[in-house]
Order: sequence, then structure tokens, then C-alpha cells
Amino acid sequence: MKNYLKHDEWCIIEEGFIPANNRISESIFSIGNGRFGQRANFEENYTGDTLPGSYVAGVYYPDKTKVGWWKNGYPEYFAKVLNATNWIGIDIEIDDVSLDLAKCKVKDFRRILNMKEGYLERSFTATTEKGKKVKVAATRLCSIVDDEIGAIRYAITPINFTGTINITPYLNGDVKNEDANWEETFWDKVEVAVKNTRAFVVSQTKKTNFKVATGMKFVISKNGKEEKFKSTKIKTGMYVGASVDVPVKKKETITVYKYAAILSSLNHPTSDILERCKAKVKQAQHLGFDKLLKDQKKAWAKKWKDSDIIIEGDVAAQQGIRFNIFHLNQTFTGVDERLNIGPKGFTGEKYGGSTYWDTEAYCLPFYLSTTEERVAKNLLIYRYKQLDKAIENAEKLGFKNGAALYPMVTMNGEECHNEWEITFEEIHRNGAIAYAIYDYIRYTADQDYLSDYGAEVLLAIARFWAQRVHFSEPKQQYVMHGVTGPNEYENNVNNNWYTNYIAAWCLKYAAEALLYVKNKAPYKYEALKEKTNFEEEKELKQWQEIQNNIYLPQDEKTGVFLQQEGFLDKALIPVEQLAAADRPLNQKWSWDRILRSCYIKQADVLQGLYFFEDKFDLATIKKNFDFYEPLTVHESSLSPCVHVVLAARIGNKDKAYEMYLRTARLDLDDYNNDTEDGLHITSMAGTWMAVVKGIGGMRVHRNQLYFEPFLPNTWQSISFKIQFRGNTILVKVTAKETRLENLSSGKVSVNLYGKTHALGAKGVVVV
Amino acid sequence: MKNYLKHDEWCIIEEGFIPANNRISESIFSIGNGRFGQRANFEENYTGDTLPGSYVAGVYYPDKTKVGWWKNGYPEYFAKVLNATNWIGIDIEIDDVSLDLAKCKVKDFRRILNMKEGYLERSFTATTEKGKKVKVAATRLCSIVDDEIGAIRYAITPINFTGTINITPYLNGDVKNEDANWEETFWDKVEVAVKNTRAFVVSQTKKTNFKVATGMKFVISKNGKEEKFKSTKIKTGMYVGASVDVPVKKKETITVYKYAAILSSLNHPTSDILERCKAKVKQAQHLGFDKLLKDQKKAWAKKWKDSDIIIEGDVAAQQGIRFNIFHLNQTFTGVDERLNIGPKGFTGEKYGGSTYWDTEAYCLPFYLSTTEERVAKNLLIYRYKQLDKAIENAEKLGFKNGAALYPMVTMNGEECHNEWEITFEEIHRNGAIAYAIYDYIRYTADQDYLSDYGAEVLLAIARFWAQRVHFSEPKQQYVMHGVTGPNEYENNVNNNWYTNYIAAWCLKYAAEALLYVKNKAPYKYEALKEKTNFEEEKELKQWQEIQNNIYLPQDEKTGVFLQQEGFLDKALIPVEQLAAADRPLNQKWSWDRILRSCYIKQADVLQGLYFFEDKFDLATIKKNFDFYEPLTVHESSLSPCVHVVLAARIGNKDKAYEMYLRTARLDLDDYNNDTEDGLHITSMAGTWMAVVKGIGGMRVHRNQLYFEPFLPNTWQSISFKIQFRGNTILVKVTAKETRLENLSSGKVSVNLYGKTHALGAKGVVVV
Repeated sequence: MKNYLKHDEWCIIEEGFIPANNRISESIFSIGNGRFGQRANFEENYTGDTLPGSYVAGVYYPDKTKVGWWKNGYPEYFAKVLNATNWIGIDIEIDDVSLDLAKCKVKDFRRILNMKEGYLERSFTATTEKGKKVKVAATRLCSIVDDEIGAIRYAITPINFTGTINITPYLNGDVKNEDANWEETFWDKVEVAVKNTRAFVVSQTKKTNFKVATGMKFVISKNGKEEKFKSTKIKTGMYVGASVDVPVKKKETITVYKYAAILSSLNHPTSDILERCKAKVKQAQHLGFDKLLKDQKKAWAKKWKDSDIIIEGDVAAQQGIRFNIFHLNQTFTGVDERLNIGPKGFTGEKYGGSTYWDTEAYCLPFYLSTTEERVAKNLLIYRYKQLDKAIENAEKLGFKNGAALYPMVTMNGEECHNEWEITFEEIHRNGAIAYAIYDYIRYTADQDYLSDYGAEVLLAIARFWAQRVHFSEPKQQYVMHGVTGPNEYENNVNNNWYTNYIAAWCLKYAAEALLYVKNKAPYKYEALKEKTNFEEEKELKQWQEIQNNIYLPQDEKTGVFLQQEGFLDKALIPVEQLAAADRPLNQKWSWDRILRSCYIKQADVLQGLYFFEDKFDLATIKKNFDFYEPLTVHESSLSPCVHVVLAARIGNKDKAYEMYLRTARLDLDDYNNDTEDGLHITSMAGTWMAVVKGIGGMRVHRNQLYFEPFLPNTWQSISFKIQFRGNTILVKVTAKETRLENLSSGKVSVNLYGKTHALGAKGVVVV
Repeated sequence: MKNYLKHDEWCIIEEGFIPANNRISESIFSIGNGRFGQRANFEENYTGDTLPGSYVAGVYYPDKTKVGWWKNGYPEYFAKVLNATNWIGIDIEIDDVSLDLAKCKVKDFRRILNMKEGYLERSFTATTEKGKKVKVAATRLCSIVDDEIGAIRYAITPINFTGTINITPYLNGDVKNEDANWEETFWDKVEVAVKNTRAFVVSQTKKTNFKVATGMKFVISKNGKEEKFKSTKIKTGMYVGASVDVPVKKKETITVYKYAAILSSLNHPTSDILERCKAKVKQAQHLGFDKLLKDQKKAWAKKWKDSDIIIEGDVAAQQGIRFNIFHLNQTFTGVDERLNIGPKGFTGEKYGGSTYWDTEAYCLPFYLSTTEERVAKNLLIYRYKQLDKAIENAEKLGFKNGAALYPMVTMNGEECHNEWEITFEEIHRNGAIAYAIYDYIRYTADQDYLSDYGAEVLLAIARFWAQRVHFSEPKQQYVMHGVTGPNEYENNVNNNWYTNYIAAWCLKYAAEALLYVKNKAPYKYEALKEKTNFEEEKELKQWQEIQNNIYLPQDEKTGVFLQQEGFLDKALIPVEQLAAADRPLNQKWSWDRILRSCYIKQADVLQGLYFFEDKFDLATIKKNFDFYEPLTVHESSLSPCVHVVLAARIGNKDKAYEMYLRTARLDLDDYNNDTEDGLHITSMAGTWMAVVKGIGGMRVHRNQLYFEPFLPNTWQSISFKIQFRGNTILVKVTAKETRLENLSSGKVSVNLYGKTHALGAKGVVVV
């Protein structure tokens, strides 16, 4: 837990340079545009502790998995998001001494992430070992208007000398991943070029053969006027740059403008990629830094218009929620259905930048409610396009007849996790992928999605579950053995309630979806049947039989659903009775002890009650919440949000707010001492969900929005906007009243505290 | 499965050179003496496929464990038995061409392991690329009389030329382990020396700092007469040798005698180790090859006198059982209580040469019945000396108050396995270590062992179990969660019957042991109490309560003990209904599928019935055997032997013999296609057990030997010798009769087929 950042409504502000916090700040001040992302590393040389990170969306390396003893079915590799060519570098030398904040006296250091307008600023004065003092002000952006452009304005002013400053803007493709399993490098050189103030690196990933072309052009101006200098080119390996000596007077400011283009072979033919990169650099230069920045501000204004949450009376909370919305929008923009949301986005290496079930279970609602429909839809199509691989994954594990098991961790649809002892058996992810289809259609009413994509996915998932259960003679019911539920502090359990429940639900929903397609688009249905060899009568009958007779463990006495069979046999001691020295368990206890304990890492039974809330009465939800929450250690960043929503639902506002506080500023305050690895991007969506579904009580039922908001005591007001089927609804809650406003020109029906209101264009309801 | 070795009663014979079988033969023809061991690599250069292996007992390297994601409690390293300085090398060059069987035309190749006399022979004729033809006959031994001496006689005869043969005997310390986790080398150079025909390498293991001094001296004789030649010394890194040019006439034989000494810092002060090594080489040379070989034959004759099993009418079976007895005696001689029995002994790298529960559960009976008492006792003392580490191991996992958890895999008492996903939870090993104490005392009547060593170990083990169980509210019984039983095709199960049973038994036996010491050696008891803070009344009461009320899962209907809670919920389909294409499961099925299947790798419930046979009536044993054996795939080499013993016990002789055939020639016929990795040394003891306890029906009850032998149909007779409390009993079974003979001068009481006979010196009973 840290607390070194200033509270501000729209900016993240770091004042004073504390090298020990540098990696944390590098994560927090990251910028990106969905196509590439950049940690807040320094432009100039820095020999202190740093995790360099330039990431290009969709470009990964299949790093050979580390495992002691191989067994059949284990994934071959752990996909890594790659640290790619460094495009930000601008080395500064004064009197043959490198400007290096690790070796200078640093004053007035400020790092500001301007979330409202989408750029990063940094300024400081530094005195070199030789006593030369300079002032630096750097501004950097990753354009969200043209997502292949990055730009930097780097201004340097000598404070106490007149002389020459050597400036070397460069690109460096000789980069490594810190988390490489075998300390290998992941990039091969294809081509490098440098000419005057332009330089290019085309590099290619080993094994996966992704090509990335990175280009730069720099311009130097003095006192606001562009000047030309003789440049010396530098070229070693994949490092290319140009060095210029700039004579400068005391207090005179030199400004370096660096324009960069980053193009990947996901979007360009490899034959042409260098030429296109050159053109893109020219385009960026032509636009110029000021125009790029102006356009950036405009584009961010539009994003905020759709997705902002305003909290009055609590600057820390306000900053926290905007920080999350900002990063979610930086990570996934929805323009490309081949991309997805890594747990750390583009802010670090950990978790490999791969796709987890986080996307479907935690992120989808954010994008559904704050962006255009196609953004969420592309998240679904991502999985649709990977259906073939999911069927292959299942085949590798012995399943047949087109059954699909979606991977727990993936880049291209193949399973690629590193920690199979847990994730191997977390097959519940298949359920979340089906649920996302249901959730999307419930929200958007885009039933056609089923005919076009959804039914085929649901069929394959249903087939998996139908094969994965088996009939227990003693129970005379269908059971499911050897799974791990969402609570990863269990492993290889039998009859996890959540997994069994969602499996049965998938069978039901898949059947409904198929019948829907049969009725609405019979020719598509016939095509699907033929493609998949779907035996309608036989398979539907089997699915029905399993649904009717699935074993769902439950305590006979209290009616509580059992996380897994035998859960009550554990020693059930509430978390609050654990000694502080024992927490967090994952650092203090041995793994076997955690496994056999009753402690829950993240919502498991409660995840099911969150997903299927409308299937259970309030008493059931309350009973289970009151049983499980006290046993939950919330050692996953994805845990508190679900508890906020459920606590609010059962009217336990104090618990809801207590849980909200655990998630609200997770990264800003480095709550788990791991922000240096990167930000918890997917749990940021969980926080959004905690606010909108928890505090705001938002739901969609029967084609209608429902709200049941409450105002935490310490807040003056909260307001947020919801995009719903082409309309924008503004919700504002103060101590006095709750106000819903339809900001659109269409008509929309909303339910507030149980009462339905039809709101016309600009219509308002106040309670 | 292979079948390329000739059947012979006393020798293993390979005829003809098939390079593809070379690694297998290198394992099978291994020789050793308990202090060092040597795979049957060639003396001369060989560029074909080979696994070089020279191993020194007790010298290991803590190779950093490979794991995807670290969790608390995982072992830091996987200990490796080390490939050490190659002492056998004799390079031959003719006309500047290296004698290399991979590149020569090879004829009349024979490799013979003379098990009766304890040496390895190899002969062949080879024609080099340049057409030079030589005949070679090599004999090699690892002395069991002086276990720091190895010797080679290498005779070479030119067949079709007169000329010069260049001979280079050498030592090479620059060796690697093929199974190194991170491709590191494990040895550092300390000192090397070469002078004329002597050479020495002192090398030291990284991290563990074991020093090993290896020395050699060679002598060359022509036509039986020693001759002197000018030698050229060679010294690079840790390779030292001396090269001599020997002029030779056609059909004249040159014989190289190479004497080697291998000393380790386990047995010698490091300051003095090189000098002692030099002296040992001199001693070997002084004795000469013929004397060394003669002494070797004599010593092996003594071993066979005590431990031989004779099967008439089945040469393959005869060869198989002698092969096992031979290797068991080569692996552990019982002279040093710091040594133990690696699953592959000194015949390969796999399983790291570490100690497993195999020692206590499978090997102890062999050494008890065929060697002096101190041999088995030293196996027990090995664990006693590691008690401190076992307590540390338990502390790392959160246990307190002197509880001990012995490691699943160890070199020095620390846990060091590579495959924690299984072994982490295989805590049942603690039970086997307690059981070995019981088994040893039952056999030897050496009750003093309890006061001197045993009670302290039992106390610490009992404390572990007392903390490891917990009380289940619903069951109102003590339960044990999160374990893996002996059947490693399950993981993280609750209430494994075997583990719960042996845990309760340990509590009972520990209490009895402590009370025994209290009565017999009160001063030792007081010392023990003080050392361990044993709270007699409180702890014994707690142990009693757990024993009285431990949960032992059992099928209510049939009374079958359940391998674990919920076992009957599995889909129970007998192994014989599996398709051949599905076998072996560990190669054909994904790991998750194996885990949730009903298939059993090795005896689990049945392991318990084997250990505690006298606690169960025959009907119970039969019921459980008939339930579990059909679900058992025997994919552990340790599986069939227990089933032989139990099948014989319940009178199912056909099943007993069927199971015996699976274990009898496991390595000789390369049954599991893995003999190339090394021999299954610990399962060889299982085979012995299958013969003596299974076919021979041997037991010890109430201080008396029991026999209930039967003769498999295909055999004419079987006879074996048993050492029992200073007496030797010969058991011989033919179709006509069973005969017991007391070969000793003492009196001994034996029970044959249920009737007790008192046999005086040389006494005989025939039934």
C-alpha cells in the first residue's frame, strides 16, 4: 500500500522523484490507444530501476512453458505480450555526461497523467555530475485518433551554462521481456534504416513471425523556431538513431519533436510495411505535435462524454473511478475483433497480455454500457473466431463431436497458460463465454447475433458440458468431478456448485438459442446443423436430461449452496479470526494449507448468484452471501466488485461500500504491492461494475433498464451515464434525490426503485 | 518391450551390436558396489547414442526446480544424482583413426554381465574406416571388497595388420547431466594432475561443495608381459590422460590394465583426499587385476549364498530374479547410514537418485531377509538422522511443536521433488517411515531400536498427524483433507482411506513405543521428553481421541473401503473394457481425464491391506482386492508386487502369477520402454517381495516365520534362503513337496501351512 500520488479530479500527479516508486509510476502513468501501449518510462537514458515496456496489440510470443514434469494435455507455451521496439528514446548528453536521473540531482520532478485530454507530462530540473543544470518538460501521447501514431515534445533548457547539448533520438529493437521463461530474446531483425533525422526498425517475432515496423522522425526547434543541425547516424543491431550537437545559450529552450509510427503485420502486408511506416511518420510530422495534441483532446472529450462517472465530495474516489475508465478506454477500443483485454493491458508483462475469462465475466458490462454496441460485439466475435481452436483444445483433452473448451488463457485461441495446476481444471470459463452472449443480447436486444455467430458457439459449449458430466450411481444424478471453480484456492474438487450450475444453464440456453435460430432463420439453422452434425432430437434430449438431473450440492439444514461437495467438512473459521500475520494467505501460508482451508480467493458460489441473480430469491442470496463472504479473503483483485453488487442487492450498504473501497484505488494506492508489474485492467472494469451495478443498482430485465441507487455517506453526489440501445441515460444521485435523465432524442423506459417511467427525449424523472 | 538378451541362469548376455539398444544395455549391464556405480558405457570413444554415467553415492547437486508459478512451500530444488568424472575411458587410435563402434564395421559383439561373480565383459572385432581390423576383450569391475576401487582389463589384438596402436587411458571430469533442469554444469575443477601413467582429477560440486577425487594408473602388457612406453600427457580442463604409442604385430595382444580409485569427501577430509586417492590407486595396482577379480568372485559368492533364489524349469524367471537380487546388492550394501536407495540406483539420472518412500515400503523386506541386521537398520537410521530436517519441512508448511513431515524425495532430509503437484500432498510417506520401524522390529526383535532411535521419530510423526487431521462438524469425526494417496492418478482428495488408516495407526504405534521406552529405559524416556517437550498426558489423550474417531470411508452396502471419500461416484468401468489404444493411460489420456477417472496407478487401499494384513479378515481382503484390482492399470513399476502378495493371500494363484510376470523381467525385457533411463531398482525389491511373500507366502508373526508357498505351474521348483535372527532357512518347493531346512546351528521355530515346527540345527521339515 502506497500513498504518494496527489488527489485530483482529472489528473494523476506525482511530485518529487522517488526512484523506489518508479516502476509503480511507470505502470500508473502508462498511455495507450488500444493498438499500442507504453509504460511511463523516461525518454532519456535511465540506469535506475525500470521496466521498459512498449507493447503492440496482438503481437505475442509463445514462450515455452516451464514445468517440472510434463503430462499430456498441458499447454505447450505461455504466450507473452512482447516488449517491442522502444520508440520513445531521446538520449541527452551534456559535456559528455549522459542525462540520467539515477545519477543527477533531481528537483521539481512532476509526472502528470492528464486523463481528461489523454496525454502524459513530465518535468524536472536536473544537475549532472559535472554541475550542469537543465530544465526538462516532456509531453507524450499515443494518438487515439490515428492509433498507429505516437508523438513526443521534449523541451530542454540549460539553467546555468551556455554550451552544446548532444541529443540522440533513437529507436531500439534490441529489447527483452523481463518475464521470459528461458531468458531468450523474442525478436529477430528484418531491416533497419537511418537517414538524417529519420530511422526505422522492422523486426519480427521468433516462431510467430509477426512483423512490426517502427519509424521515427525528429525535428529540433530553438526558441520556437525549427532549426537544422548536422546529424550523425548510429546503427548497431536493432538500435538506430541520429545524434545532433545543438549549441545553446543559458535559459534558451531547445525542443525536440519526435514523431513515431508503429505498424504491425496484423494490419499491413509485410511486403509493404516499411513503406507504409515511412508514410505514416511523414503524416504525423505533417500534422505536427500541436495538431495531434488538439485532436487527442477532442477525441478524449467524446469518450468522457459517453462514459464519465462523477463523484462529488470525495476527490480520491473521483480520481479512482476516472483512472479506471481512462485505462479501460486506452486498452480496448473495439475497432478490431482480433484484439482483447489482457489483465494488465499494455502496462506490464505479467499474465502475458493474454485473454482470460475476465473479459466476459467482468469487462463486458463496462463496454456494453459506455460505448457503441460494436465494441462489446467485437469482444464476442473474438471468441467466435476462435471456436475452431476451442474445439481443438477439447479434442486434445479427449472430447469429441465438436465439443469446445475455450482456453483459460489465450492469444490466438490456443490454451497457453503457465499455471496449469490451477487453470487446467477451471473449465467454468466455458460458461462465462456462453453467459457473455446471453448478457450481450439481453442488453442490446441484438437477437440476430445468435443466428450469425452465437448459436454455433453455444452448441459447441453445450456439447462439452454434456460430455464432461457423468452419471453417479450412488447419487443417481449427473456429477462433475475434477474441476477448479472461480475460487482458485481450491483445486481438483468434485461438484463445484458454480460450475455445475452454469453447465446446466449453458445446456438450457444453447437449446433455446438453437430453437430460436430454427424458427427465425431456418436456412441458417440447416447450415449450422450440417456444419456441426448436430443431431437435434438426440442431443437436445440428452441436454434436457442432464439439466433435469444435475447434482447441485446444498446444505440440507441451511439450504446454503455448497461451493463443492464436502465443503462443510472443512474447519470453518471466519477470516476475521485469522491473525494479521497470516495475511495475505498466498504470501504467508504454504499452498497445501491454503488448498485445504475454507478460505475463498474470490467469489465462487456468489459469482453464480451474481450472474443468475434473477433465478434466486433475496433470502437465498442473503443466506449465501452471509455464509461465504466472511470466509473470503478477496486475494484476487476481481473479488470485491461482485461482493459490492450482491451486498447492495441484499441491502447491506455498509458492506457494499467497504468492499467498494477495496477495489476503488487498487492500483493508485498500490493496495497489493504489485502495481509495478502493471495495472489490474480487467479488475478496473469490476470497479466500474461495482459503482454502476452495485451503488447504482443498474440491471436490465425484460428489455428495460432498472436502477436502485444509493449514496454512500461520504459522497455528496454520484452521477454516471449509461448507453442503452442508442440512448444515453444520465443517473444522478444526491442525498436529496435520485434523478434520471434521457439525454437522447429517442424514447426510453426505465425503472427506478421498482417503478417504471417512460422518458421521452430529454425526459427526466426525479425521486 | 524388447527381447534381445539371451536367457541364461547366471549371466545377462547381449550378442550382436544394435546401436538402438545401446542405452538400454548401458542400464542393464551397469555395475556398482554401493559406493559408486557405472553404466555399461564403452571404454573407447563412442560417438553413437549413449548416456554416460559414473555416479558416486551421496554426491548430489540441488538443481533449481522448474515451475511455472511459485507458491509457498514448494521445494527450492530437485536433487540430482551426478554424472561424475569418467574413470573408464581408454581411447584407441589406429592410423590416426579413432576406434569408435559407431563408425566401424563391428562383428562378434558380446556384452556379458556375470552376476555370479560380479563383473562386466565385452568383446568384439571391429574394422576401422581404413580397413584395420582389431579384436577387443574388456573386463571391468567395481570392487565390492574395497568399494573405492574400480579396475579394467582391456585387451586389443590386431587381426590384419602390424603397426602402431595409440592408446590413451584418461579421466574426464568435464561431464554433464543430461537431465539438468537449466543445462548447467554441476562440477568445478579443484585440481588435476598427470604424471606418466598416473592421472588425477579432484572436482567439486557447485553449491553442495562435495569433493570427489578420481585417480588412475595404467599398465600395458604385451603377450602377458608388462612393457614400458613413452607417454605423452594430455591435460585440458578436467580431462587428464596419457597417450602411448604401442608397436604391435599382427595377432599379438596388447593388454591395458587400468586401476581407478574414487574417493569422496563424504568419507575423507578434503585436505587429504588427493593423497589418499593416490595411495588407493597404488594399492589397487599393487593387488593387480587378477587378485581384484578373484576377491570379487569370492565376495559375490558370499552374497549369493545368503540371498539367492533358485527357480528350476524356467530360465527366464531364474535370470530375472537373479538380475534383481544382483542389482539390489550392487546398489545398497548397508555400510553407511548416510546412503540410501535411489529408484534408479546408480544406473541412470532419472528420479535424481534421491530417496523415496520406496525404501521403506518396498525395499526394507529384501534387506531384512537376505543380509545382516545392520543393513536394514542403517536404512532406518538414515531417516533418524534426518529427523531435524523433517521437522523443518513440517515447519515450512505451518506445523508446530516438533511435528515431522518426512520428504517425499530427498538427498539430505530436505524435500527436493520436481513434481510437487503430486508429491506435495503425498503425506502418506510419513506413515511408511513409521511402519518401517515396526516392520524392522517385528522381524529382528531389536526392541532397543525404539529407545535408541525409533521412539523419537515416531513421536514427531504422530505429532504431524495429530495436527494434520481436523474435526468435521457434519461427520463428528476427524478427517484429513487435501492429500494424495499412493495412487498418484488422484490428486488433492479428501479422506484417502490409506492415509487416514496409517495416520491413526501411527498415533497408536507411537503411543505404544513411547510407553515401551518409558518402561524399559526410563532415563532415555525422560531425556526424550525433555528434548521434545513431550506432554505425555495431553498428547497421548489427543492421539487416542483421534484414533478412536477417525473417519475411514467405507461403502455401506458392500463394506469395501473407499480409496477416498466419494470414490463410488466415479464412472467405474473395469480396465479390461478400456480400448488398447487408450493404454497406457499416462501416455494416451490428458492428465485431467486421468485424475477424474477411476483408474488406479498402484495399490492404494490395497497397500494398506498389504501393510496391515493381520488386522483384516480374509473376506475383507478379498472383497477389496476384487473391487480394486480390476480398476488398476499398474502403471507404476511398484504396483504388481503388492498385488502378487495379496492375490496369493486370498488364494488367487493365477492372478498372483499373472501379476508376477509383469514385474519379473521389467527391465530385462524393457517392459515399459524406459530401461534406457536406468533400472527400476526399488521395484526389483518389490519383485523379490512378490516371490518370497507372494509365492513363498512368508510372514513374520509373534516372533516366528510363517510360510505358505505354492508352485507356479510352469516351474519345476523354487527355492530361496531367508535370514532370520541369525539363522538361515532354506525353503524349497517342488510339485511333490515343500521343504524347509534350517541351515544354521541355532534352533528356529517355523510355521508351514499353518503348522508350527521347531527346527534344530540342520533340521528339516517336509510337507
